Amino acid sequence: MPDPGPSPLQSSLPAAVASFGAHVLAGALAVGVEPAVGAGPVEPAVGAGPVEPSPPPSPAPPVPPALPTGPPVLTPVPVPASVPDEGAAAAAAPQPRAALERILRGPSGLGTASLHWARSDAPAAAGEADAPDAPAPAAGNPIPGLYHHPVPEPDPVRVEELSRRIKAWALDEVSLYPEDWEDQFDGFSVGRYMVACHPDAPSIEHLMLATRLMVAENAVDDCYCEDHGGSPVGLGGRLLLAHTALDPVHTTKEYAPDWEASLLSDAPRRAYRSAMEYFLQSTTPSQADRFRHDMARLHMGYLAEGAWAQTEYVPEVWEYLAMRQFNNFRPCPTITDSVGGYELPADLHAQPAMQRVIALAGNATTIVNDLYSYTKELASPGRHLNLPVVIAEREGRSEKDAYLKAVEVHNDLMRDFETAAAELALACPVPTVQRFLRGVAVWVDGNHYWHQTNTYRYSLPDFW
Amino acid sequence: MPDPGPSPLQSSLPAAVASFGAHVLAGALAVGVEPAVGAGPVEPAVGAGPVEPSPPPSPAPPVPPALPTGPPVLTPVPVPASVPDEGAAAAAAPQPRAALERILRGPSGLGTASLHWARSDAPAAAGEADAPDAPAPAAGNPIPGLYHHPVPEPDPVRVEELSRRIKAWALDEVSLYPEDWEDQFDGFSVGRYMVACHPDAPSIEHLMLATRLMVAENAVDDCYCEDHGGSPVGLGGRLLLAHTALDPVHTTKEYAPDWEASLLSDAPRRAYRSAMEYFLQSTTPSQADRFRHDMARLHMGYLAEGAWAQTEYVPEVWEYLAMRQFNNFRPCPTITDSVGGYELPADLHAQPAMQRVIALAGNATTIVNDLYSYTKELASPGRHLNLPVVIAEREGRSEKDAYLKAVEVHNDLMRDFETAAAELALACPVPTVQRFLRGVAVWVDGNHYWHQTNTYRYSLPDFW
Repeated sequence: MPDPGPSPLQSSLPAAVASFGAHVLAGALAVGVEPAVGAGPVEPAVGAGPVEPSPPPSPAPPVPPALPTGPPVLTPVPVPASVPDEGAAAAAAPQPRAALERILRGPSGLGTASLHWARSDAPAAAGEADAPDAPAPAAGNPIPGLYHHPVPEPDPVRVEELSRRIKAWALDEVSLYPEDWEDQFDGFSVGRYMVACHPDAPSIEHLMLATRLMVAENAVDDCYCEDHGGSPVGLGGRLLLAHTALDPVHTTKEYAPDWEASLLSDAPRRAYRSAMEYFLQSTTPSQADRFRHDMARLHMGYLAEGAWAQTEYVPEVWEYLAMRQFNNFRPCPTITDSVGGYELPADLHAQPAMQRVIALAGNATTIVNDLYSYTKELASPGRHLNLPVVIAEREGRSEKDAYLKAVEVHNDLMRDFETAAAELALACPVPTVQRFLRGVAVWVDGNHYWHQTNTYRYSLPDFW
Repeated sequence: MPDPGPSPLQSSLPAAVASFGAHVLAGALAVGVEPAVGAGPVEPAVGAGPVEPSPPPSPAPPVPPALPTGPPVLTPVPVPASVPDEGAAAAAAPQPRAALERILRGPSGLGTASLHWARSDAPAAAGEADAPDAPAPAAGNPIPGLYHHPVPEPDPVRVEELSRRIKAWALDEVSLYPEDWEDQFDGFSVGRYMVACHPDAPSIEHLMLATRLMVAENAVDDCYCEDHGGSPVGLGGRLLLAHTALDPVHTTKEYAPDWEASLLSDAPRRAYRSAMEYFLQSTTPSQADRFRHDMARLHMGYLAEGAWAQTEYVPEVWEYLAMRQFNNFRPCPTITDSVGGYELPADLHAQPAMQRVIALAGNATTIVNDLYSYTKELASPGRHLNLPVVIAEREGRSEKDAYLKAVEVHNDLMRDFETAAAELALACPVPTVQRFLRGVAVWVDGNHYWHQTNTYRYSLPDFW
């Protein structure tokens, strides 16, 4: 796994960052937060032993518990021509907020652009023109009416190198999958996914931190829960033992060797163990603790979903949404600082306002998954719960109406996330907080990009 | 819930603390760590609205990742006359460590006592004489051969007041149990338990933080998992929804009210919600985040145990011990700083050496529970996994041999905990770290005391 040195993307990062001008959170950049390219934790030496983690950075002051009532983020809502009335109703009807928007828009004179957290005149949705020099958009259409932000095409050189390295890791280091799963691994396009989600990673090795974990998380989900032999029966035992690859067992000398050997006994555990070992080498103990917590949440979410599958219980919509806050992408955006080579201090991460931002971002990204994977899951054996299916069942709606309502739920979560992030950014002008918030927002956008463009896995239903 | 002011125990705390002179961790006190009685976070005003949490204290410097090889803790091992050879073999055979002990004992001249983290001449086990002025020991015998430290009888005035308040909370605030469960509630003796485990709590209200959570955790375990209508079927869904009383759902305006209403819909959720609300009022966000993480671990542990029960799988001993590191008392000792009115900074809590200490302490306390509840669980319907049962099944031992081996496993965990704590205390002379380590150790001892003396719930098997 040779390190080819700094990726060509590093020199183009300012351009990539400039493209966040299109993003609702771009204002943060303009108030002095530059990505610290190359300033991150230690780059693990390839083939060398464990690297000492860099010491935690100086902690930043805590966020005041009470956030001021700042201006809400008011971005224009996309109204694709093909969206039917019922689907676009909520999305296309910002009237109640229009007056407020005018009042709260703030200064508009020359030179005031950088004062805005959110610019309501920024392009914010598919269907609008990309920057003139942007590459041609990738395959795949966005879901009509889905509130999202397009991202620049991820750097192809970086994608290629990351894809090469992650495959080498999967095959050579953790024997992740048998040969006949190669197509599925390639179709996952995890390299493109992670480059899109982490444009500020200082190096390929930083991207590998996220990519290994993402692959390992998918291996656990596939092999223990779903596609490849997974089952809800006995899942609690399997997931707990896999979790010990992230959160180690401390036991007696007699029994420790059996536990250690177990971490090499199947592909999911090999992947968790190795991915976590690399993660520990490049992050602080608090970042590792945060990740473990998010993974415990994820595993609890899998177990709730599994319990409902086993008892054939279709949850209420609110119950489903609660479960989906746990069975959630959360562990991925919350390592944005680790992948970016800096640390959001633990005390700032724990603030209720930050926890709310993270939860809303995770929820929005996760409902994106429900929407793009809808037809894939319908085609799978058994009944697979997702938000449209639960809304249809619990609220007596047609499949189409339920799907379109799920789009609205997503859009509400996205707007709540952006509002909460903007308020926190105003209340807490700490560089690591600003950069972390932007990193989470970029992850949300990159996640949408990957779902939209992953035509190997996903196709849209015929509802428009 | 009137606050009667400072408990009489406050003035007697120095005496209570002095009794830790008998404790292996007592050395820490003598090197300048005084309990900050009354110096903790805000005391919630009774009947008033939420109190702003005090700001996080200034963070202390991080622990160096590599601990020096300090002297192991070498305490005398109890050899009760009635312990059979096979049970006491490991416990009574410290020969391999004797030379090391002599070398590592350190300075022994006049005035050097306070330099020792551990004094090998301190009384360390049942069967040895208490201090001459100690009250008569409570009912209940310790398990022969179990390595433990006796504690002073908890202050009866404080126990009485705490017991009164927790019952009022259970009945009046959260409607925890129907009338005919009152005997069980009283028999739980949770007031005595928590006073024994938190002798440095600055006030009854601080003790209430721990006591509400302990009662709520038991309600969830009883009602969802075990004694009172619990079942492994569908447990994942129930536990996740209960967990949202600790780790709130952030969802859309349409669905949030149903979730909020659900938190009042059964006793376990009412108890979690209320106990957490009080906890949040008196602790920092990082302390709350730590607690949530430990509770996610606990719930994962319940779910592993439930999965094995459902599939009638008897785990390997190492698998059982791994599960029991999650289905574990850990959430209780790790709030020792919250209950003590100070904060162990998040970055120090996350250090691998601290995580190891916490895990080992939690594991030792949890195996104590397996050992004392052995006959109770044998008498319950169905097969209840505990360490002696698993050892008997998986290692082909008699019930008695398996039980005595489980005692040895406990003793090894206790010694490993004390060694790890002593090493960390030497490596990290930060007052909050020293006090936290002592708090965890005192919790371990108080937990043993409660199990030993709770003859309402527990009786020993006839193996000696």
